[in-house]
Amino acid sequence: MVLNNNRISDLKISYIGGGSKEWAWKLMSDLALEIQLSGTVTLYDIDKEAAIENATVGAMHSNHPDSKSGWKYQVANTLEQTLTGADFVIISILPGTFQEMRSDVHAPEKYGIYQSVGDTVGPGGIIRALRTIPLYVDFALNIKKYCPDAWVLNYTNPMAVCTRTLFEVFPQIKAFGCCHEVFHTQSLLALMVKEVLGVEDVTRSDIKTNILGINHFTWINSAFYKNIDLFPLYRDFSEKYYYCGYADDPFETWLSSPFHSAARVRFDLFKRYGLIAAAGDRHLVEFLPPWYLRGPELAKEWKFSLTTVDFRIAQMKDRLNKRKRILTGEEHLKLAPSGEEGIKQIKALLGLDELITNVNIPNAGQLKGIPKGAVVETNAHLSGMGIKPVIAGYLPNEIQNIVIRHVLNQEMVVKAGIEKNKELAYRAFVNDPLVNINLEDSRKLFDEMLRNTREYLQGWEI
Amino acid sequence: MVLNNNRISDLKISYIGGGSKEWAWKLMSDLALEIQLSGTVTLYDIDKEAAIENATVGAMHSNHPDSKSGWKYQVANTLEQTLTGADFVIISILPGTFQEMRSDVHAPEKYGIYQSVGDTVGPGGIIRALRTIPLYVDFALNIKKYCPDAWVLNYTNPMAVCTRTLFEVFPQIKAFGCCHEVFHTQSLLALMVKEVLGVEDVTRSDIKTNILGINHFTWINSAFYKNIDLFPLYRDFSEKYYYCGYADDPFETWLSSPFHSAARVRFDLFKRYGLIAAAGDRHLVEFLPPWYLRGPELAKEWKFSLTTVDFRIAQMKDRLNKRKRILTGEEHLKLAPSGEEGIKQIKALLGLDELITNVNIPNAGQLKGIPKGAVVETNAHLSGMGIKPVIAGYLPNEIQNIVIRHVLNQEMVVKAGIEKNKELAYRAFVNDPLVNINLEDSRKLFDEMLRNTREYLQGWEI
Amino acid sequence: MVLNNNRISDLKISYIGGGSKEWAWKLMSDLALEIQLSGTVTLYDIDKEAAIENATVGAMHSNHPDSKSGWKYQVANTLEQTLTGADFVIISILPGTFQEMRSDVHAPEKYGIYQSVGDTVGPGGIIRALRTIPLYVDFALNIKKYCPDAWVLNYTNPMAVCTRTLFEVFPQIKAFGCCHEVFHTQSLLALMVKEVLGVEDVTRSDIKTNILGINHFTWINSAFYKNIDLFPLYRDFSEKYYYCGYADDPFETWLSSPFHSAARVRFDLFKRYGLIAAAGDRHLVEFLPPWYLRGPELAKEWKFSLTTVDFRIAQMKDRLNKRKRILTGEEHLKLAPSGEEGIKQIKALLGLDELITNVNIPNAGQLKGIPKGAVVETNAHLSGMGIKPVIAGYLPNEIQNIVIRHVLNQEMVVKAGIEKNKELAYRAFVNDPLVNINLEDSRKLFDEMLRNTREYLQGWEI
Amino acid sequence: MVLNNNRISDLKISYIGGGSKEWAWKLMSDLALEIQLSGTVTLYDIDKEAAIENATVGAMHSNHPDSKSGWKYQVANTLEQTLTGADFVIISILPGTFQEMRSDVHAPEKYGIYQSVGDTVGPGGIIRALRTIPLYVDFALNIKKYCPDAWVLNYTNPMAVCTRTLFEVFPQIKAFGCCHEVFHTQSLLALMVKEVLGVEDVTRSDIKTNILGINHFTWINSAFYKNIDLFPLYRDFSEKYYYCGYADDPFETWLSSPFHSAARVRFDLFKRYGLIAAAGDRHLVEFLPPWYLRGPELAKEWKFSLTTVDFRIAQMKDRLNKRKRILTGEEHLKLAPSGEEGIKQIKALLGLDELITNVNIPNAGQLKGIPKGAVVETNAHLSGMGIKPVIAGYLPNEIQNIVIRHVLNQEMVVKAGIEKNKELAYRAFVNDPLVNINLEDSRKLFDEMLRNTREYLQGWEI
Repeated sequence: MVLNNNRISDLKISYIGGGSKEWAWKLMSDLALEIQLSGTVTLYDIDKEAAIENATVGAMHSNHPDSKSGWKYQVANTLEQTLTGADFVIISILPGTFQEMRSDVHAPEKYGIYQSVGDTVGPGGIIRALRTIPLYVDFALNIKKYCPDAWVLNYTNPMAVCTRTLFEVFPQIKAFGCCHEVFHTQSLLALMVKEVLGVEDVTRSDIKTNILGINHFTWINSAFYKNIDLFPLYRDFSEKYYYCGYADDPFETWLSSPFHSAARVRFDLFKRYGLIAAAGDRHLVEFLPPWYLRGPELAKEWKFSLTTVDFRIAQMKDRLNKRKRILTGEEHLKLAPSGEEGIKQIKALLGLDELITNVNIPNAGQLKGIPKGAVVETNAHLSGMGIKPVIAGYLPNEIQNIVIRHVLNQEMVVKAGIEKNKELAYRAFVNDPLVNINLEDSRKLFDEMLRNTREYLQGWEI
Repeated sequence: MVLNNNRISDLKISYIGGGSKEWAWKLMSDLALEIQLSGTVTLYDIDKEAAIENATVGAMHSNHPDSKSGWKYQVANTLEQTLTGADFVIISILPGTFQEMRSDVHAPEKYGIYQSVGDTVGPGGIIRALRTIPLYVDFALNIKKYCPDAWVLNYTNPMAVCTRTLFEVFPQIKAFGCCHEVFHTQSLLALMVKEVLGVEDVTRSDIKTNILGINHFTWINSAFYKNIDLFPLYRDFSEKYYYCGYADDPFETWLSSPFHSAARVRFDLFKRYGLIAAAGDRHLVEFLPPWYLRGPELAKEWKFSLTTVDFRIAQMKDRLNKRKRILTGEEHLKLAPSGEEGIKQIKALLGLDELITNVNIPNAGQLKGIPKGAVVETNAHLSGMGIKPVIAGYLPNEIQNIVIRHVLNQEMVVKAGIEKNKELAYRAFVNDPLVNINLEDSRKLFDEMLRNTREYLQGWEI
Repeated sequence: MVLNNNRISDLKISYIGGGSKEWAWKLMSDLALEIQLSGTVTLYDIDKEAAIENATVGAMHSNHPDSKSGWKYQVANTLEQTLTGADFVIISILPGTFQEMRSDVHAPEKYGIYQSVGDTVGPGGIIRALRTIPLYVDFALNIKKYCPDAWVLNYTNPMAVCTRTLFEVFPQIKAFGCCHEVFHTQSLLALMVKEVLGVEDVTRSDIKTNILGINHFTWINSAFYKNIDLFPLYRDFSEKYYYCGYADDPFETWLSSPFHSAARVRFDLFKRYGLIAAAGDRHLVEFLPPWYLRGPELAKEWKFSLTTVDFRIAQMKDRLNKRKRILTGEEHLKLAPSGEEGIKQIKALLGLDELITNVNIPNAGQLKGIPKGAVVETNAHLSGMGIKPVIAGYLPNEIQNIVIRHVLNQEMVVKAGIEKNKELAYRAFVNDPLVNINLEDSRKLFDEMLRNTREYLQGWEI
Repeated sequence: MVLNNNRISDLKISYIGGGSKEWAWKLMSDLALEIQLSGTVTLYDIDKEAAIENATVGAMHSNHPDSKSGWKYQVANTLEQTLTGADFVIISILPGTFQEMRSDVHAPEKYGIYQSVGDTVGPGGIIRALRTIPLYVDFALNIKKYCPDAWVLNYTNPMAVCTRTLFEVFPQIKAFGCCHEVFHTQSLLALMVKEVLGVEDVTRSDIKTNILGINHFTWINSAFYKNIDLFPLYRDFSEKYYYCGYADDPFETWLSSPFHSAARVRFDLFKRYGLIAAAGDRHLVEFLPPWYLRGPELAKEWKFSLTTVDFRIAQMKDRLNKRKRILTGEEHLKLAPSGEEGIKQIKALLGLDELITNVNIPNAGQLKGIPKGAVVETNAHLSGMGIKPVIAGYLPNEIQNIVIRHVLNQEMVVKAGIEKNKELAYRAFVNDPLVNINLEDSRKLFDEMLRNTREYLQGWEI
């Protein structure tokens, strides 16, 4: 890459999962709108056709009249091809197919275990993790071989397990995990400031928050808009909307979209613990005992959705159709900022800016009371010097107790996945708060779910 | 006290709960049989009559023909009286009456929550803790005032919470908690050595074990008889008795005595985790999710008893009758070693001996991964220099995850008890693995149980 | 204070040492130039005349045609007056008079011990610390009483000891220490970038550095200008100027100004340790064994000055004359940015901005291998949420060894100062690397220096 | 090995440095007097003749009429031979010859640096360490290969560096370092008890001490004889003998034997720091700045000797003569307990006993404030389970400061030795408190001393 006149050209970005219909498109759009960067994106996907189509879409972004920079898109046949020479590696994959996902999310239902997402913790999250770890072992080994100095941004879930695996296999890797759940919480606080204080033009970047926890179960113990402490405001705000729920967008409520919620769980957790939970309700409930997750009825009461795999299949069909329409010119491509921070983070790491934001990296003391090395989510300082975690502090014991339970479980899952250790994996599984059934049933469910994903578990004795 | 010719005379022991019909009698017997010590025991009890009767029983011990030492027994009217000038303080009390205990143990049953003991963790253990803490705050303040240099031996449950409270209120206190559960496990291992290796005359003191955990949920990760590793032996042994269970004494099986078990849970835990659980099954099951505790039927399958309060009332009647018969001369007093280590520990702390044994003290690094200050149970070195913990190491994550859950819960309970903070107490309560019910029910149960013990919760808003 | 339209008015700043002829003037100038802030500065000084004159000077700043904000200046008679209601407290005092300073700096010379500054470590720094601690105990107690929520900025040396004392006495204090030595190093690196890379308009804020150490003995282990690693450049740069020395300003060389140096020591330390020392040579040499400090001759070789007290007296005379000329209108007051960061820091803490900069605060894990609580200097994130340290990492053992020596010495000095413990103070004194003399002499010197400052050591047995 | 009837036969001991004229003889004698152990000792030495002669001497011990056990002695030609099948490995070697030792001890004298032993720290200790490390790397690799489960007892100096190297190369090694300096201190305290309290038959095993520090610079912060605190006694005792010095044996005073001292330094250190230094004066002084070590005159004042290499050569001659006389029957072999603890330690590790004693092992938290992994000396529990360190606590900052300085230096020396890194070695060298000279001289001295031992520094660039 070449630094010139405060711009960097000839940057090389490798995209693993480059056939992605969501994250890859967001990146293309953000890259096209970024004047300070240019270079080449090399797409790699086990679905090569998807990567090829995305390369065309990428070129359409580059050639778009609103585009401010010229990016080239090409397709790689192998990990070696995509990684060699890369300055940045982006990983955003779907581990397995909808078939395995169906087992993750729905197989436990016959034992009364419901999941709203099923990709992070809970029985589904753990099985998904076991399926994903071998892929990440492979990524780590190839990055070590072909681009050991590249920065690696992970977007795949389960976030903590994926990122942890990269560091376990290649401890010197310069990797971190990115997730927008905290951003959405900051946006919620910005809307609150607008509503309560009558300030216009507040955006999430005006809200300063101290982040503690693990991905999808992060907490805020300090939040400020300029010199205004937002906790007293949030207390009133959460009581006001405690029963009815809060919708930031009247057209995209939890009823119309299975990715939205009414923040009722979040408000209830504030009542219980006095801290602001910084993830969507659908994620939060999966980390807890089945307090809010005992089936669709209770979910409805708390005004969040259980995202089904059927819905995801339908959504994928929509996206594929959209891509087709774009490629055929039937629909016009629009460039718009995605709201994600990937490009900002890349610019900060290139020294074009600096940034305080929340990232997922191994604990080096930023989160007290959590074992060193486990992947946690807190603020960090990103600059040309790299990533330096900001000390977040210690969670109150009542939340710490839930967080560390998942942290230790994730440590076990990573170990089990790398060692192909079925018994250890089961010990993590049976320790998950949602696996709230008797021992025999938990064993049966585990065996069934593992069998359902056995294609991805080469070398395991199943 | 006076050291002379390897004996110490004029020792002053204060006994809080001196009307005790069990621990106090064991002590009297052990003291009478100990040639190197003599002095005065000052009994204090809120049931003063019981203390007076015990003083008489104490004198009978002293005057017994088999007695090797002359101990005086007297009764104190106040804490000040019993503590002033004390070299050692023994605390062994029953917090509350059988009425409160009935609520602890049985009130949760209507929600399907069963407890085998109900005095350590679980809903019963937590409520009992809240009731006990104010008493221990008082003990700590009085010890600070009247005998700050005395050694304090705690025998009351919940052990960790009681000991933690003493240190929280008076950080310089020289206190530790003593429990015989680990001893029983060592005895079991000694019996195993006898059975498997054919060695005669093996006693628990020949078995060396490394202890890790918290009271009533301790684990052994290394066990030796001389240079023989006992883990391979235990593997076979636990399989041999896995289904039928093991009875050390054919006349005191789990069926005949509600304090015995057949070690089936212990053997099952070995299968699961590869470590030896070092407490009786009745205690172990209460720390876990309701894997073994879903009611009397399941308990029967696993061959342990749910000790009812009715049984305890009957047992107390027997003890009172026995005391009466002893006092009237109807029954003859016999001196016999209790098997407890209290006197050995006292002698070690007086420098007459030295001892490696398991004690409950604040964590100073002996148990890795557990917060400093929380009370843990590991080996320690007792000598004239005092108590120095031996580094025990780190539990495997799957057990660590259960241990730390209770440790953090106990930290919360101690804080709640001292601050009279009902909400914090509930947060601990609802986080207990046995409180495996929905949020509304957990709140109702908590409120009910707290009300049932409100007489001991002065200053609380209930 | 009042937030309105992105400005804060009615801010209350308390200035202890408000008669200062240097730091106070810098502040007045920076405040006058800052459009987003306005309010009142209350000057307090034991030399009340000086404070009164400064209030007049302050008003001149406010009324200056270039001033962008209206600040009021008033004089307080007592600490209570200045502190009550304060939002920010600035402490910048001279502990003792030139008479005590003369003893600090020059008394050791008769034993062959030379000091270039004598205000941080070394015999002079330690004695100065002992004299300063009682004053800081008093400040802390008054802040606790009159403005416990105020932010406290310390500028007084010895920085670490002063800041540590504030936290020791009032652990909840929101204090930090500010120093410009690191800024000067960043400016040096900016000049290097200009010279080597030919980039124009580089300023120190374009240079990102990771800071590790203690005040006046800080180190940089990572330095970037955008994506350019500055270490290879610095290697060449330091060799180029190794013998001749480097002067950033041809008119203010080490020869003309006793506050300047030619960076030769800094370059030599880079050769030895491979890290960039981030303080002026005059400070650095005092932390080391007398490698560079064996008298004026050796100092001349290394091209730095031993700042004499006579020089400081002359400098003070100049400053007083200047103030007189300003007050009489003989000289015209000019407003210019001081280059200090105080106002930026205040704005960040008020949430008007955010800032990553180096501060002196108690170690909460940001500097590995250093005891928690000791005051260290590393980067931190300043925002409306307050100060959150950034994890700096671990120094290489060879530097760590020198740093921790002073850290532990400073811990001893603070303890000795608070407890008025002469023997403990001597143990720190004799352990200083510059006190490189035999035991008898070190005792004599210590006694003499302590006597020379005894007026400030009330309650000590000297 | 075979356990039978509380005895262990067929034990295999490997002795590296088996030609030793001192430690090997002590071991032979202790083995012959130990009834519970028997087996084979395999001697290995680069001076094979010496090993062969010692095998004969060993047989003479075995066949001695007072011998209680039958040990076989044989000679190995290679490390592989001696290590294969070993249950225990003893390492006690002289690294280099008297020629290198002469450089270690005397080369620094031309710069005014005197050393009383020169084998642990100081310029001599560091150079000796660099020479020894390659040998220990080799030992560790061979132990890993041929007897990974054997217990390894190290007696060679520099103790900490040797033991640290073993663990650095083979982290799973079961090694520890043994030294008698603490035992001598306990003997001194026993003599004090006898003298002051008039108790007869007190031996060092009656004295309980808490040990903190590093080999040859260990400290006692708690010492008890039964329940009697020895600190007040030691205060008086050390004052009584402060000027005249104390001699435990009127026939072996510091004047007659260069290994004895009059404990004056130890008494002076007690005055300064309030703790009991637990090593001989000759060792202690080398860890400190040259307070007591400025040449023979000052040493004489403090009543300890500077042990010259000429003396050691003479002593070796005596020992060789003695061996000759023994082998020829001219002198009669006597069996007597050596006073060392090696056999006791071996028995404890075999589970025949248990033992609390001081050992040198990597820090796992037993010594607070010292990096994990560095080799420290504290009490530990030895039993069939192995070695478990007892938590010793934290040294007062004034002593901690000296200890950590050497700990970090030793870490650097080990790293430098393994990496053959001359510059890093010099950074440690110049940081030693005795290397109290200017930079140029320190460089010259280092280069000279390194050259003098270059035969043992294969692969170094010297």
